Amino acid sequence: MSEIHALGETELQERLRMLQEKYDGFMQRRLKLDMSRGKPSPEQLQLSMGMLDAVTSADGLLASDGTDTRNYGGLDGIPEAKALFAQILEVSPQEIVIGGSSSLTMMHDAIARAMLFGVDADSTPWGKRSAVKFLCPSPGYDRHFAICELFGIEMIAIDMFDDGPDMDTVERLAGEDDSIKGIWCVPKYSNPDGLTYSDDVVDRLARMKTKAGDFRIMWDNAYAVHHLTERADKLKNIFAACRDAGNPDRVLMFSSTSKISFAGSGIAVMAASERNLNVTRKQLSVQTIGPDKVNQLRHVRFFEHISKLESHMAKHASILKPKFDLVLNMFERELDGKGVATWRKPNGGYFISLNTLDGCAVEVVKLAAEAGVTLTKAGATFPYGTDPRDRNIRIAPSYPTLAELETAIEVICVCVEIASIKKIMG
Amino acid sequence: MSEIHALGETELQERLRMLQEKYDGFMQRRLKLDMSRGKPSPEQLQLSMGMLDAVTSADGLLASDGTDTRNYGGLDGIPEAKALFAQILEVSPQEIVIGGSSSLTMMHDAIARAMLFGVDADSTPWGKRSAVKFLCPSPGYDRHFAICELFGIEMIAIDMFDDGPDMDTVERLAGEDDSIKGIWCVPKYSNPDGLTYSDDVVDRLARMKTKAGDFRIMWDNAYAVHHLTERADKLKNIFAACRDAGNPDRVLMFSSTSKISFAGSGIAVMAASERNLNVTRKQLSVQTIGPDKVNQLRHVRFFEHISKLESHMAKHASILKPKFDLVLNMFERELDGKGVATWRKPNGGYFISLNTLDGCAVEVVKLAAEAGVTLTKAGATFPYGTDPRDRNIRIAPSYPTLAELETAIEVICVCVEIASIKKIMG
Repeated sequence: MSEIHALGETELQERLRMLQEKYDGFMQRRLKLDMSRGKPSPEQLQLSMGMLDAVTSADGLLASDGTDTRNYGGLDGIPEAKALFAQILEVSPQEIVIGGSSSLTMMHDAIARAMLFGVDADSTPWGKRSAVKFLCPSPGYDRHFAICELFGIEMIAIDMFDDGPDMDTVERLAGEDDSIKGIWCVPKYSNPDGLTYSDDVVDRLARMKTKAGDFRIMWDNAYAVHHLTERADKLKNIFAACRDAGNPDRVLMFSSTSKISFAGSGIAVMAASERNLNVTRKQLSVQTIGPDKVNQLRHVRFFEHISKLESHMAKHASILKPKFDLVLNMFERELDGKGVATWRKPNGGYFISLNTLDGCAVEVVKLAAEAGVTLTKAGATFPYGTDPRDRNIRIAPSYPTLAELETAIEVICVCVEIASIKKIMG
Repeated sequence: MSEIHALGETELQERLRMLQEKYDGFMQRRLKLDMSRGKPSPEQLQLSMGMLDAVTSADGLLASDGTDTRNYGGLDGIPEAKALFAQILEVSPQEIVIGGSSSLTMMHDAIARAMLFGVDADSTPWGKRSAVKFLCPSPGYDRHFAICELFGIEMIAIDMFDDGPDMDTVERLAGEDDSIKGIWCVPKYSNPDGLTYSDDVVDRLARMKTKAGDFRIMWDNAYAVHHLTERADKLKNIFAACRDAGNPDRVLMFSSTSKISFAGSGIAVMAASERNLNVTRKQLSVQTIGPDKVNQLRHVRFFEHISKLESHMAKHASILKPKFDLVLNMFERELDGKGVATWRKPNGGYFISLNTLDGCAVEVVKLAAEAGVTLTKAGATFPYGTDPRDRNIRIAPSYPTLAELETAIEVICVCVEIASIKKIMG
């Protein structure tokens, strides 16, 4: 099929009629496919069922330091859980605080603390300022943006390039406006683009001058070990980079096992400098007597060490890779060369980012929904839910079966073409 | 031994010499006993070991509504967990939100939300006011007071009578000062007094006129099913009372299984009116994708229904009761009739509240600590850690063995007498 921009009016109309026929066919099938969120599939969850047997009534419940995991205490996690996450995140165990089941909660709470109390004892609570702004590389993760909206933090969208955020703009804005208090980053296999920040971007983030002394990089390392291929992307260690640059307190790192073990019952973690963690622990000690330590033990006993965890992740990849390949192959077959969309081929993570012609994403998502395929809301990957070019669609291939996925992507491709032709025809 | 107030100088000195000898004997034993917190004992934790086998790899992981508990979702809990807590708290399942492992976190977060956003869309965030105050029936739970301190909420101590807080004062203050935004209550087997609010107190709390329209009762029903004897105290349902009084949104109820299953790995719950829960859910949806549902399933499969849970609590009581009896019998034997202390005999809960002569509690706790017996910090049961009469000591008998407890209470009794005589002698 040729580039649609090269087609004349009649050819476009003929093409649209054919597509509409296909679309009507889908409508008659009364599909009900949900690709809206990056959820692991039941097959993936099955990989971790052994974890449910890792701590039974026959087992000892003491942590390596003698803590009875069943009882109160242990505000920031048991030593062996810290050690495991330290390996995953390439930091030291002393830089780790283990949380409950949700890293989103740890990010939300970190922002809430900064709003209420400031990032440390010497700084002004963000909530006392007339304006607080965050840099938001976009497309990005909608739930980060929702946290900003909740707290009334003004979001400034930053373009994403192939190697990470547009650093010229990031440096310029952060350097001139002291109401800019931070930046959201998913630095590895980014949500939704699936790209990994280059060493240069990491260095520039660590090194840049910020007008605000209490500027924080919210480093959501959600996909640290979530490779799809043998060619794992390598992310430069921002902890070391910040330390080397004399900005050791600049970065707060977050991660979880939500897409390693169970999405609903994993363990979450925050890594930060000693100074940041002391502030955090002080406030945590009022908020909780400690997170679920038995679940920490369960994880540590099941995964044991980083190499076993990496083998486990290879099993996830063997389930996910065919799904990503299917989507990418279908995009290539159905859309390539037509001038209607572009996409990236990620080496890891949970998403494929599809960019339609400008002004078509909302229409594609609407058409797909009417045909029974639920996608992430168009615009969701941008601050305030508004994609200025109305073109980005986040594809989440993990949950559906291959058969469902094939149907869903067929629908999406038809919707993309329909929306594109309608757009061109005006 | 006679009332010490009736003794002359010489008799007091002789008595003090004998006590000091006993105390020195304890010093030589280099004791190391911790009675500072209300932690379940290992024997109690053992009662719930079966819960670790309630969800294994051989079991189905679906909740009753078909939710896969291993995956994302289920913001406010699975239906069967809501149903179980609804029975415990005598509310409807629709009035329940299940949280993570800590009810303290749910209370902290409820206050944080009120500070940041107000109790609902129509009200002013508490944090925007020049002053926010809370009524704090005292002695009370130190961690409630720590939350107020963290958020800069001014605490007003309210005396505790035999049937609950001094309601005349509560009504007067709440009725005249609109900066008073709430009251902390542990209404059943209160921490530390072990008393249960009377029906009249519950009714007055539900019915009283509050100057602040956004006044909230923080109803920490931590010991709802934690009876020590067959004569369980009966607490009037404040939900029904508030509804009947036309104040359905006044109360936020909290509870957890921390002292039912595992203190570190239980499940927490908040119960509130539909209006309150809608506000809560809206903010929760930004903070988390949902709490640990597998742990909810584990609890529901282990406890099944309220009557089985009640049998389980009877087993806790059979371990706790001899400890409480030991403490009470020793107090009676060692302190009764001497005019040096008073105490209550609770029908449930985790504490015995000991009141020394005015001005002696700090000294008793210090003497005990020097002899190797760690007690809850004197004053901890009052706002700002200051007991105006310096007399209340919270005794937590649950964790030590009976033998350890016997020694610890011997030490405490000697310390109480020493401090009392020194006080009298000036």
